Amino acid sequence: MSLDSTPLQLSARMADLRSSAIRDLLTLTARPSVISLAGGLPATKLVPRERISQAALRALDDPRTVQYGETSGWAPLRETVAVRESGKVGRVVDPAEVVVTHGSQQALSLLAQVLIDPGDTVVVEEPGYTGALQVFRTAQAALAPVALDEDGMDTAALEHALREGLRPKVVHTVSNFHNPRGVVLSARRRRHLAALADRYGFWVIEDDPYGELWFDTPAPAPVAAHSDRVLRLSSGSKTLAPALRIGWLHGDRRVCEAVELLKQGADLCGSSLTQQIATELLDDHEWLDEHLATVRGSYAARAGALVRALESTFGPRISHATVHGGMFCWIEFADGVDTTALLDTALAHDVAYVPGGAFGVAHAHPHAARLCFATYEEAVLVEGVARLRSAYDARAEKLIPR
Amino acid sequence: MSLDSTPLQLSARMADLRSSAIRDLLTLTARPSVISLAGGLPATKLVPRERISQAALRALDDPRTVQYGETSGWAPLRETVAVRESGKVGRVVDPAEVVVTHGSQQALSLLAQVLIDPGDTVVVEEPGYTGALQVFRTAQAALAPVALDEDGMDTAALEHALREGLRPKVVHTVSNFHNPRGVVLSARRRRHLAALADRYGFWVIEDDPYGELWFDTPAPAPVAAHSDRVLRLSSGSKTLAPALRIGWLHGDRRVCEAVELLKQGADLCGSSLTQQIATELLDDHEWLDEHLATVRGSYAARAGALVRALESTFGPRISHATVHGGMFCWIEFADGVDTTALLDTALAHDVAYVPGGAFGVAHAHPHAARLCFATYEEAVLVEGVARLRSAYDARAEKLIPR
Repeated sequence: MSLDSTPLQLSARMADLRSSAIRDLLTLTARPSVISLAGGLPATKLVPRERISQAALRALDDPRTVQYGETSGWAPLRETVAVRESGKVGRVVDPAEVVVTHGSQQALSLLAQVLIDPGDTVVVEEPGYTGALQVFRTAQAALAPVALDEDGMDTAALEHALREGLRPKVVHTVSNFHNPRGVVLSARRRRHLAALADRYGFWVIEDDPYGELWFDTPAPAPVAAHSDRVLRLSSGSKTLAPALRIGWLHGDRRVCEAVELLKQGADLCGSSLTQQIATELLDDHEWLDEHLATVRGSYAARAGALVRALESTFGPRISHATVHGGMFCWIEFADGVDTTALLDTALAHDVAYVPGGAFGVAHAHPHAARLCFATYEEAVLVEGVARLRSAYDARAEKLIPR
Repeated sequence: MSLDSTPLQLSARMADLRSSAIRDLLTLTARPSVISLAGGLPATKLVPRERISQAALRALDDPRTVQYGETSGWAPLRETVAVRESGKVGRVVDPAEVVVTHGSQQALSLLAQVLIDPGDTVVVEEPGYTGALQVFRTAQAALAPVALDEDGMDTAALEHALREGLRPKVVHTVSNFHNPRGVVLSARRRRHLAALADRYGFWVIEDDPYGELWFDTPAPAPVAAHSDRVLRLSSGSKTLAPALRIGWLHGDRRVCEAVELLKQGADLCGSSLTQQIATELLDDHEWLDEHLATVRGSYAARAGALVRALESTFGPRISHATVHGGMFCWIEFADGVDTTALLDTALAHDVAYVPGGAFGVAHAHPHAARLCFATYEEAVLVEGVARLRSAYDARAEKLIPR
């Protein structure tokens, strides 16, 4: 039996799995001439490489740093995270309610495996974070999308669906500075979502990688402040460095134990080295506060520059959500432009974005796009918008027969 | 609905999942007074911390090191691994046939998810690597154990089972310096296993974290040298440092693509920092050859010291496999001692090992134990054996009524 002549038999969970459009796009846009507003990359220049180098050297002085570590995470890091989370949720969090993961993406993936059987219903946001959609599809969940507006997930629509009989195992929300929509779940809706979780007995996965990246005002208290049925995910990727691959889960101790059990088989443990680096940086409050202030100020300036450029370049042809923090601006073309069709032209003009369709569950979001303002300095963002306008005009010319 | 009064409903895959006895044991044996021969920890002192520090500083000079990276791995590391694997399997390996993972454990876990549906048959070794048993149990596979002897997996027994109708999706083998048995799959059986894979159309997962740790002679050419149906796993954890969490998979390109797709959701990507460190160390051939020679010499000396101590202390009360490399020595008590029962007494005498039962699938291996000789220097190993003898004698005294 020759291998090449045999069709590859993969598991059922692979059948409906698609590659993330965004990760594929990142490959396409890797050429240096492209201004890629497509990626979700933090500003490389704002990553504290010198501080990380210092911490790395200090960590490598400790022999424990090079060994295998505990599956649930480097104990001092779990303590640090527990203290941080205590401040956010307004009660004392025990380190046993924390699991350190390889980015919050791993926490999401392990949670899906712990909680979800094939066919279980999972409520996701429409549009939703592609990494979450991919995880829940891998878990062979039935996705039930709930719309977003300027105040985040429409919890009234969710309640209506619950009254009609929807029984989700999990509701996933990016509560702060949503990816891709940029919006913040309002305080009232956070309480509402928590009350619905308690009443209907589902888990909320509150996915919060961007919460620290507020511009003027911190986001409201997390959903986890209002219910024990919330599993909160966060990460050092957007505040320290993506390459540390440090994320965490905080929530019900029994769920944490199940996640830890699954992580034993998934990858044994995280890197003692990068966990120790992250611990030092998160524990250095004076440095961290200053660093976060710098990142917030820089991202606010970049978001402002992008939005002003969009407004002056496109005027009423584009509407956009107000940006209060995070990394993303969601735009919609008012005149029926198909953003998936426009992308080829945009790439020819050396600019990239993610078409709305990549985030769609039941809707295609054909006129929408996600622009990341975090990666580049203001002048580059302005140039990116100018190129987008050129692409837009070129497309319009193609549509008008001469 | 109060959360505490609600039983926790986890997914079906969690139902039969047990915590790894070894990882639990590691927690129990963490107190400094215990000489733990239970862990699978490489010698901390042999981990090249200074060389890693140099590489870390150089890596952190490069801004790319702190960003998100490609899901399939840092491109230069994939190239380095491809060259290494080419030398082992005797043909040119394309970097597209390599995926870098978070330790080889992640490769195993992702492969299981890519290849196995609930109910599929997986052949495992008896006794087998606990991390593999856990992964295949999580995948809800039906485990079909095949016995090991001094020449590794009994492929004649496997062929017999295949003739009788066994149709595995996957056969898992730790071909070099088996965990826990210490044995090496013979060259003849490697060819036999490869031929069976081709004939019956199953995948072989050749799990090879210990291959570089030979004492006198390198192990025979890998199973992957004889068939395209082999997915080879290896790792830098035992040769560079566990904390880098660098492992890799090499094999069929389509399987690699499926693994990459699943890894997008599992954790987005590995650490650009630790991958760049590993690349520098693996590419520094002169340093690496010298480093590996040191590790091999040291482990050979430790294995010799352990075996001599066992022989002089226990004589014919214990039989052990000949140790040719790796990190483990498998012993069996000739006089019916139950190693699970003995463990409590051993811990009271400040020495630990892993009872054979932890590695059992269909058999309990009640008189066997795995001892790791890699972690400690010779004198400590000798003291550990002396304590084991004290525990053994104390147990015997308890058995004889006075």
